[in-house]
Amino acid sequence: MSQQAQRIVLAARPVGEPKASDFRLEDVAVPVAGPGQVLLRTIWMSLDPYMRGRMSEGPSYAAPVEINGVMEGGTVAEVIASNNPEFAKGDIVLAHSGWQTHALSDGKGLRKIDPRIAPISTAVGVLGMPGMTAYTGLLEIGKPQPGETVVVAAASGAVGSAVGQIARIKGARAVGIAGGAEKCRYVKDELGFDECLDHRDPDLAAKLKEACPKGIDVYFENVGGKVWDAVLPRLNPFARVPVCGLIADYNALSGDAPGPNRAPALMRAILVKRLTLRGFIVRDFAALHGAFLRDMSLWLREGKVKHREFVTEGLASAPDAFIGLLKGANFGKQLVRVGPDRL
Amino acid sequence: MSQQAQRIVLAARPVGEPKASDFRLEDVAVPVAGPGQVLLRTIWMSLDPYMRGRMSEGPSYAAPVEINGVMEGGTVAEVIASNNPEFAKGDIVLAHSGWQTHALSDGKGLRKIDPRIAPISTAVGVLGMPGMTAYTGLLEIGKPQPGETVVVAAASGAVGSAVGQIARIKGARAVGIAGGAEKCRYVKDELGFDECLDHRDPDLAAKLKEACPKGIDVYFENVGGKVWDAVLPRLNPFARVPVCGLIADYNALSGDAPGPNRAPALMRAILVKRLTLRGFIVRDFAALHGAFLRDMSLWLREGKVKHREFVTEGLASAPDAFIGLLKGANFGKQLVRVGPDRL
Repeated sequence: MSQQAQRIVLAARPVGEPKASDFRLEDVAVPVAGPGQVLLRTIWMSLDPYMRGRMSEGPSYAAPVEINGVMEGGTVAEVIASNNPEFAKGDIVLAHSGWQTHALSDGKGLRKIDPRIAPISTAVGVLGMPGMTAYTGLLEIGKPQPGETVVVAAASGAVGSAVGQIARIKGARAVGIAGGAEKCRYVKDELGFDECLDHRDPDLAAKLKEACPKGIDVYFENVGGKVWDAVLPRLNPFARVPVCGLIADYNALSGDAPGPNRAPALMRAILVKRLTLRGFIVRDFAALHGAFLRDMSLWLREGKVKHREFVTEGLASAPDAFIGLLKGANFGKQLVRVGPDRL
Repeated sequence: MSQQAQRIVLAARPVGEPKASDFRLEDVAVPVAGPGQVLLRTIWMSLDPYMRGRMSEGPSYAAPVEINGVMEGGTVAEVIASNNPEFAKGDIVLAHSGWQTHALSDGKGLRKIDPRIAPISTAVGVLGMPGMTAYTGLLEIGKPQPGETVVVAAASGAVGSAVGQIARIKGARAVGIAGGAEKCRYVKDELGFDECLDHRDPDLAAKLKEACPKGIDVYFENVGGKVWDAVLPRLNPFARVPVCGLIADYNALSGDAPGPNRAPALMRAILVKRLTLRGFIVRDFAALHGAFLRDMSLWLREGKVKHREFVTEGLASAPDAFIGLLKGANFGKQLVRVGPDRL
């Protein structure tokens, strides 16, 4: 008797914005754990902007998802069968098992989660990859000093919200940019940022100047596009720019954009202002995982870092949720609830 | 009885490439040293690409030269009169006294040069600002590791020649880019770079790929323009790019260049390859001056660093020499001999 499982595969490489037909939901049999393997049942699935990069061919830090291959991504899963002595039935694990209800694993790369410490969904959120991205990029590259000004976009999202709150913990001023008045209110009133601006405001550049009277010392770059255009002229000498993502440009990344060519002016700004721009991905800082978990768990307990989840229900909701994520339709960390915490 | 002195002032702000009429040679009386002052007689005057920046208004790390103001620049000068107990008549000093035969100084910023250690002209060359620019930018930002590949343009020039030779001292592979076969031969055969490419070669991109079979780990950016365009696709993951100058772009720096817009592709490369781009000027690393002098003096004595001077005669030659410098007409460190070593 084989149980029913589901998975979502990449049906076509998107041209520009992904659309529903670029994905395909498939019904398959639940696989059976072989020697040394565990069978995972997905509970939570994380949707993250980087996944747009995996949908395209071309050089990147990771291979693209194959056509007809399962979309990849971080998950929180339950071990429902185990032929691996390291894992027992009922264990909750952090996995990278992708957009599917069930998956096999040889145990490599799985990390057990203790459900008593924090809600298990935080393992793919504030205590997981997005939180660690914020922590490492801000502290290792941005290096905010007390009294400095830190700007971050997508400020109500998983990474941006942590960036601003950690900046404040370190004594810096945090200015967020988010989409719409409701998100801005949340960023300022709930998360405690000093200011938050609406990126849809046609006067963004002027508002940014006003919100950063002493200029910008750290810009945590996770969106690109017109926010970066507004930030660049306001960067102070010796400003640091951790480059973590370029969500606004993800849909139009092949080849060059229409002119004018702003690259020479960018290089000139780097020279004249002695800027540091540095790209990173979270696994570059894997050695800091222990420090991150210790600090972030403490800040959560102390109420110094707050977080918000934005949940859609069922695996089938993932494509639309992901398309929405790239447009900022989510309000908080985007999660898909694939299955219940306990069967 | 007043002696004759000469100076060159900025007559007009250049539009694009500087031309002779942007400068004016003036005859003036030799000034008289007041209380605490010294009178300097210029022997050597350094011409450097950064001076193009000082001729334009607009934000930079230093104020522009005023219209009708004396062009600024580093000099080696003799103290010919002194009312300052720190300096005696006959002292040779490193100064920043600009494009003129004589200047007054209160002594601040002057540094005595010992003519027994090295030819005094090296104080504005390989043992001066250009040498220290190469040393600090390469070692503090570029951080070349043994076996890595370092690329530098203007490789026969004051900065580039030192960059490649220091890279080799540190065990890295040095690939230079220079203008024309003669300079390339010098860079490879005399300076010992592993390869040197002609930037005028229409196949520069393909030649660069061939010359750097393991990609590029450090690109010391001092030219910008099409060299940077050729280098960017060849940068390895985690490559470092000290941004020291953009000579190819200096004449066209106001506003944006014609499209396509290559800035988004640049930001994407920074992200995907986890590049570090960092602008600097030599005075950011002033604390390293002692280490630089110690190391570079040793390397010169050991013959591990060679240098070449390109001298034009007389203050009046400076405008044409400077215009030529921006086009690569010089072959080695560009100097103007303003006066004899000893009167």
